[in-house]
Amino acid sequence: MPHPNFTADALHALTERFGERLKMTEAVREQHGRDESREGTVLPDAVLFAESEQDVVDALRLAQEYALPVVPWAAGSSLEGQLLPVQGGLSLDVSGLNQVLDVRPASFQATVQAGVTYPELNRQLRRGGLFFPVDPGAEASLGGMASTNASGTAAVRYGTTRDNILGLRVVLSGGEVLDLGSQARKTAAGYDLRGLFIGAEGTLGVITQLTVRLHPLPAHVAVLRAAFADIAQAAACAAHIMGAALQPERLELIDAGEIAAVNAYLGRDYPESPTLWMEFAAPTPGSLEETLGVARELCAESGGQGLQEAHSEAERAAVWEARHKAYYAITAQHPGHAFLTTDLCVPLEYLPELVAFSHGLAQESGLDTSVVGHVGDGNFHVTFHAPAEDAATWQAIHAVYDKMVTRALAAGGTCTGEHGVGLHKRGHLAREHGPALPYMRAVKAAFDPLGIMNPGKIF
Amino acid sequence: MPHPNFTADALHALTERFGERLKMTEAVREQHGRDESREGTVLPDAVLFAESEQDVVDALRLAQEYALPVVPWAAGSSLEGQLLPVQGGLSLDVSGLNQVLDVRPASFQATVQAGVTYPELNRQLRRGGLFFPVDPGAEASLGGMASTNASGTAAVRYGTTRDNILGLRVVLSGGEVLDLGSQARKTAAGYDLRGLFIGAEGTLGVITQLTVRLHPLPAHVAVLRAAFADIAQAAACAAHIMGAALQPERLELIDAGEIAAVNAYLGRDYPESPTLWMEFAAPTPGSLEETLGVARELCAESGGQGLQEAHSEAERAAVWEARHKAYYAITAQHPGHAFLTTDLCVPLEYLPELVAFSHGLAQESGLDTSVVGHVGDGNFHVTFHAPAEDAATWQAIHAVYDKMVTRALAAGGTCTGEHGVGLHKRGHLAREHGPALPYMRAVKAAFDPLGIMNPGKIF
Ligand SMILES: Cc1cc2nc3c(=O)[nH]c(=O)nc-3n(C[C@H](O)[C@H](O)[C@H](O)COP(=O)(O)OP(=O)(O)OC[C@H]3O[C@@H](n4cnc5c(N)ncnc54)[C@H](O)[C@@H]3O)c2cc1C
Ligand SMILES: Cc1cc2nc3c(=O)[nH]c(=O)nc-3n(C[C@H](O)[C@H](O)[C@H](O)COP(=O)(O)OP(=O)(O)OC[C@H]3O[C@@H](n4cnc5c(N)ncnc54)[C@H](O)[C@@H]3O)c2cc1C
Repeated sequence: MPHPNFTADALHALTERFGERLKMTEAVREQHGRDESREGTVLPDAVLFAESEQDVVDALRLAQEYALPVVPWAAGSSLEGQLLPVQGGLSLDVSGLNQVLDVRPASFQATVQAGVTYPELNRQLRRGGLFFPVDPGAEASLGGMASTNASGTAAVRYGTTRDNILGLRVVLSGGEVLDLGSQARKTAAGYDLRGLFIGAEGTLGVITQLTVRLHPLPAHVAVLRAAFADIAQAAACAAHIMGAALQPERLELIDAGEIAAVNAYLGRDYPESPTLWMEFAAPTPGSLEETLGVARELCAESGGQGLQEAHSEAERAAVWEARHKAYYAITAQHPGHAFLTTDLCVPLEYLPELVAFSHGLAQESGLDTSVVGHVGDGNFHVTFHAPAEDAATWQAIHAVYDKMVTRALAAGGTCTGEHGVGLHKRGHLAREHGPALPYMRAVKAAFDPLGIMNPGKIF
Repeated sequence: MPHPNFTADALHALTERFGERLKMTEAVREQHGRDESREGTVLPDAVLFAESEQDVVDALRLAQEYALPVVPWAAGSSLEGQLLPVQGGLSLDVSGLNQVLDVRPASFQATVQAGVTYPELNRQLRRGGLFFPVDPGAEASLGGMASTNASGTAAVRYGTTRDNILGLRVVLSGGEVLDLGSQARKTAAGYDLRGLFIGAEGTLGVITQLTVRLHPLPAHVAVLRAAFADIAQAAACAAHIMGAALQPERLELIDAGEIAAVNAYLGRDYPESPTLWMEFAAPTPGSLEETLGVARELCAESGGQGLQEAHSEAERAAVWEARHKAYYAITAQHPGHAFLTTDLCVPLEYLPELVAFSHGLAQESGLDTSVVGHVGDGNFHVTFHAPAEDAATWQAIHAVYDKMVTRALAAGGTCTGEHGVGLHKRGHLAREHGPALPYMRAVKAAFDPLGIMNPGKIF
């Protein structure tokens, strides 16, 4: 059933403006009707492939004219149903906005179109000795990462997407274009509207351009791996590393199950016990050696075993490839299953307890789970899985998940550290921010009075 | 002339609730009728001294009932007229909300009441080996710093107040209390309302509590001073330091005039030429030495002269005392003058050019100015001064300032890196963010429908 406003008139106006770039084939609509969580599919009425900001402006002008819902679509890697056009309407594919517009090395910044992926940006930056540090596991776009406030393994050192965006150019429903933020490294000029669009999941407008912060590629880098008797010990070690101001570039926890999955998926032979993968960097070889000295000591004092170091670029890349593919490794182990990955985030001191609590609950319920964590941030992922049609198991999974959320909120944490709310966490958000929701809705109404931007998400 | 809604009824209701803590003496109203810029005084009708969140709730409930303007007042150190009750009404003094409520070292965070000053927080934290890094020159409160998105010398390494606030508790006009953000280090849970209140200058509501990020006190620290032939050379050196990923804790530029003022004010004998004051830290003495080695080389290559190092805590404190008192040193040189300090911030590559441009304009107009800069952030302060009644000189000053703003905006910068908009920069903000202003106003209306929170500021 198409959206009631997807009328012959609307279709005519869209086709007249966009011609071939408006697609209505089943295959294209299918591809734009789901996300990486693969939980359900809802087809848009049509998919519009934007190639320029003007395309976005005209699309949102027509969308407002016909009161048609619009779901921005970038790399399609989100996990919370953000991309599902639950009311039908248009999926607005912005992956064609793929130009790196301007790199200003002397200001440590670049201006890019929203569809550029972070690996592509980093490929273009590499020779200049700079990089963009936020690295979710998938090849996400910068506009998508801004829209979910994505982070990843490097957030412990460089912050989240929010911390690395200076300016945004956005198009509102109706077609108005706004420049938000500034290209300066800091500003106190009025309300932070830039910050509102970060994490807004396409519900306030479409990001067309971003000015992002770049960082010097660290000169001397090493990866340390240490195995622990249990997760609590590993988490305690991570806390010591943080406290010593060693400023790890990355600080990741992987449980035995995930390591086994990665070993199988990539043919590795990492010891199958709870492990910390840590990266350190320094401006000189001497200071790197000093940092590693302290880190080795802290690991040993915390019960770390089988310390391994990787210094060459290839060895280090292999470790982070394994980390980035952990999710795919788990999914490959369970063909035909559906997956749910949590992303609770709590104050550091509560992390070991919350991971243990989650693990205990899952075991009690007979669920097979695995854990990875951006443990320097207090952010951890439990991956649940079961056949999509196994209603009883999914009910058990959601019961465990619900208790985990309760515990995380009681500890002052958040129901989502990095994946966002989308469709699936609206109930959790209401528990976390109930009294603030009317104000979020008022903000939404200020930018999108017809409520056509990605309707049904977040709230 | 009292505000028309400051009726006998309103006064009665306020007195009934607050008794002695509602003050209407001339002296108290005077003190709350100006800020540190000393540019003009506008008296509030009364000053209310809050001592608890409940006081704030009741004050804002009554304010809404009687439609009375309310200006939150904390440490009184702001510079842009933010505190002037231009429509009369209440000044709500929150400096009595001065409790550090909870320090959680293992989570690197503390929860404090909004009136706590950052030096006081750091005094209480010191023994635990942690600190809050944002350090404006004045003894500002954390609520005030949040409300102006303050920064200071340490922002180059630790970011601004925005980057160091996890959660906020705010009271809205009418008395509703909201918890915004989270105590987790990162979150993607809905719109960032926390971020809206940061930099809102009391126009959206009153902050009563903040959960802030803490950082480990750096273990080994040294200060480096280097003098340069001119400001451009000093700025170029700063850029090299940033590019080498040495991660300075501080990176400050001071021109010859400021050094002369500081020498006179504090009895120092710093060489009176453009100077960089840099602080470096490392987890071990060995890695500090490595970092200093690279820094020394970069200074020498950039024409830095008379390199001086300070290692002891006392020596280092003396340097930063001098930096923090630079403004008072200048004001002491010109008794009876009024002062205007700009805080433009531009992408790093444009800093030398903008400083030179500003200096040139001031010279052409026969104005005596001095410059200090958070040069690793692209943020610099030009201090102008003249007798308050010297209209011709003030006109010349504003003409120069205006051209500086034009040039900064053309370079992608902002009219305010850290002091905020207040009363004095509303015109500049309109030039910087004109098309976004209606949306800022809509946000304001969503939180403060009667428009009683610090009216006349920002817009
Ligand atoms: C294997 C795997 C690992 C992952 N690891 C991480 C991780 O470590 N950390 C993490 O944070 N996330 C992770 N994710 C989730 C996902 O990669 C992020 O949410 C990412 O930010 C989505 O970016 P995208 O370009 O794919 O956006 P999409 O999925 O295409 O869109 C995401 C949301 O943003 C909106 N949107 C997209 N582009 C725009 C735009 N230009 N303007 C306005 N709205 C827009 C969409 O409408 C949607 O609501 C992972 C996902 C997978 C599959
Ligand atoms: C010598 C000197 C040096 C300075 N150096 C710097 C610097 O390096 N960097 C920098 O950023 N600034 C600097 N400043 C400016 C000033 O210190 C900052 O703006 C500071 O953040 C103001 O904090 P305060 O507690 O004094 O707030 P106030 O001046 O009392 O208030 C500032 C604004 O915040 C609002 N407000 C205060 N408390 C609350 C609350 N609890 N809830 C809601 N609104 C509130 C007020 O209404 C007002 O609009 C300097 C000032 C001086 C005098």
